[in-house]
Amino acid sequence: MSDQEKELKLLRDQIDSIDRQIHGLLNDRARCAQHVAEVKEKYQGSKDAVFYRPEREAQVLRRVMERNEGPLADHEVARLFREVMSVCLALEKPMHVAFLGPEGNFTQQAASKHFGHSAHCIPFNSGDEVFREVESGGAHYGVVPIENSSEGVVSHTLDLFKRFNLTICGEVELRIHHHVLRADDLGLDQITRIYLPQQTLSQCRSWLDSHFLSAERILVNSNAEAARMAIKQGAGAVAIASELVADLYQLNVVARNIDDQSDNSTRYLIIGDQEVGESGQDKTSILVTVRDKSGALYELLEHFHKHKISLTGIETRPANSENSHSAFYIDFEGHAANKHIQKVLQELQSETVELKLLGSYPVAVL
Amino acid sequence: MSDQEKELKLLRDQIDSIDRQIHGLLNDRARCAQHVAEVKEKYQGSKDAVFYRPEREAQVLRRVMERNEGPLADHEVARLFREVMSVCLALEKPMHVAFLGPEGNFTQQAASKHFGHSAHCIPFNSGDEVFREVESGGAHYGVVPIENSSEGVVSHTLDLFKRFNLTICGEVELRIHHHVLRADDLGLDQITRIYLPQQTLSQCRSWLDSHFLSAERILVNSNAEAARMAIKQGAGAVAIASELVADLYQLNVVARNIDDQSDNSTRYLIIGDQEVGESGQDKTSILVTVRDKSGALYELLEHFHKHKISLTGIETRPANSENSHSAFYIDFEGHAANKHIQKVLQELQSETVELKLLGSYPVAVL
Repeated sequence: MSDQEKELKLLRDQIDSIDRQIHGLLNDRARCAQHVAEVKEKYQGSKDAVFYRPEREAQVLRRVMERNEGPLADHEVARLFREVMSVCLALEKPMHVAFLGPEGNFTQQAASKHFGHSAHCIPFNSGDEVFREVESGGAHYGVVPIENSSEGVVSHTLDLFKRFNLTICGEVELRIHHHVLRADDLGLDQITRIYLPQQTLSQCRSWLDSHFLSAERILVNSNAEAARMAIKQGAGAVAIASELVADLYQLNVVARNIDDQSDNSTRYLIIGDQEVGESGQDKTSILVTVRDKSGALYELLEHFHKHKISLTGIETRPANSENSHSAFYIDFEGHAANKHIQKVLQELQSETVELKLLGSYPVAVL
Repeated sequence: MSDQEKELKLLRDQIDSIDRQIHGLLNDRARCAQHVAEVKEKYQGSKDAVFYRPEREAQVLRRVMERNEGPLADHEVARLFREVMSVCLALEKPMHVAFLGPEGNFTQQAASKHFGHSAHCIPFNSGDEVFREVESGGAHYGVVPIENSSEGVVSHTLDLFKRFNLTICGEVELRIHHHVLRADDLGLDQITRIYLPQQTLSQCRSWLDSHFLSAERILVNSNAEAARMAIKQGAGAVAIASELVADLYQLNVVARNIDDQSDNSTRYLIIGDQEVGESGQDKTSILVTVRDKSGALYELLEHFHKHKISLTGIETRPANSENSHSAFYIDFEGHAANKHIQKVLQELQSETVELKLLGSYPVAVL
């Protein structure tokens, strides 16, 4: 055995011993999860027992990231623990998740990111079908894109919350940013051809229209292919793709984050029919309907300002011509179980036509 | 605190303590993996060091499955360890994997199943491009479907092995079986409409042609949607989908495994430019060219029979009209480092026009 082989053998024996310990602990953890299920069934009955607790998962993942000292990156360890929880949960109760398809899209990625790969994710053709599937109990949870106004999803999803009696149990963020990449050093000069897939075009259309309206746009199958075409075509050709693709193909990033919706375009909601407890770092979403008059929104927001509650998002729905009512979808920091938040909700209740609490849920961890 | 809360708190404290131990061990393992990388770089140089050892991964996963006592299922624990190895490997060297796209297809699933979710998988439009990317070093490995003759991939992939100097480093199996599902109890009687997606149609076409040529075929976006349509349409309507979908929608399975290629349609090869050592349970693939004469294949196979070597697969390539040569792609059990196998290869060498060893690699674990 050579010196190298000896040194490697020592390390591999060490890894094998670590693996045996991890393996034993994983099964110990699974047994605990089974006991949790038994306790819940004993007290709540097997029909009403709730096995998936988003707030508890968020706490576990946050703790993992806080105490992590490396060398594994925080998000990588958290991802592993997400998978561990997913496997343990599948043992208590196989999880069925409905998502807005088609298969293989970003919404499916969001579903897998949130529920891990042990959950069964099933594609549906419309937000409507996703909501109906969850309401009927066919799926335990649903995943829908919420902030992707380029494709008009937001308004449609908002309407669904009016029609279905479901709550928001969580949110998922996918961080996808698009950049302009090219092989040469000309920066943003002399761009004549832009390679990109359809989905990317719909996410970056405004920026491209305002900066490069006259350049030819050539649709390809993926962002990686766009990069390859830009390299192949050379002079004047650029690709729209992510940092990862730029690294892979060693292209220069000549303009960053050209997405029309910046972070917004990649947020997804988990819908279900359960109330989620406090995780210590939560968000609340409401749908408020007010009589359409000037200053209506300002008056609404004053209540939040007064109680020092940070808004994290707001979407306006146009006035309904029939009854002159406007609707606002508002996200803010804090949990509805919190007294502070309850006060604001009470104030809003008395001043609005309708206030619908869509749910309090943990802020996206990963 | 109620009794239930007390019992749950005890269990959760236990889980938290287990998680802390798992977390510590994961980082210990990552440190060992870093040391492995250092040793390899010391002896092999940072350029030539090979970080990914398919035979070693296969051994780890087989050991995990052998010693597993539950309650977690063997394949679930193995999947978790695949992810753990994927994360540790990414720390040594971020892995780039080229696969035959488009994004979101089964080949991507195969790539993630084999390399874990820490590998960067990049879609390419043709097998040709995948091979070129790996040969040029742009990607470390490639993933291509091999046994899916409904779409003619096999023959094309075989031709690629002739043109590129790459080896097979592994195989992946995706187990997807299609069944005929319906909501009522009529079995295979009175079927007038069949709902299925395009991909499923191409995988089950012969069976459907021979059994239900006159039934209307309606293409939908996913197998889940096919199930929903079958339920909605009722009498005479069936869906073609997997066991999972049957469970989800509580449909009756009235015909099983109607796939034209049975297991075959879902095998994928990992290609690279490295020779893989013995894992203890290996397969070898060769490409043999012989002069086209009657009995040529039989004579070839005799050598395997004589040495008691089990064939696992064989594909015939038609004779080339120019030089009357036939080619066979043969898979068999055993590793080329094995003396037994070497003898057969020597015998074949002397009797064939050309013998190309495509690679020896671990039998698919998961």
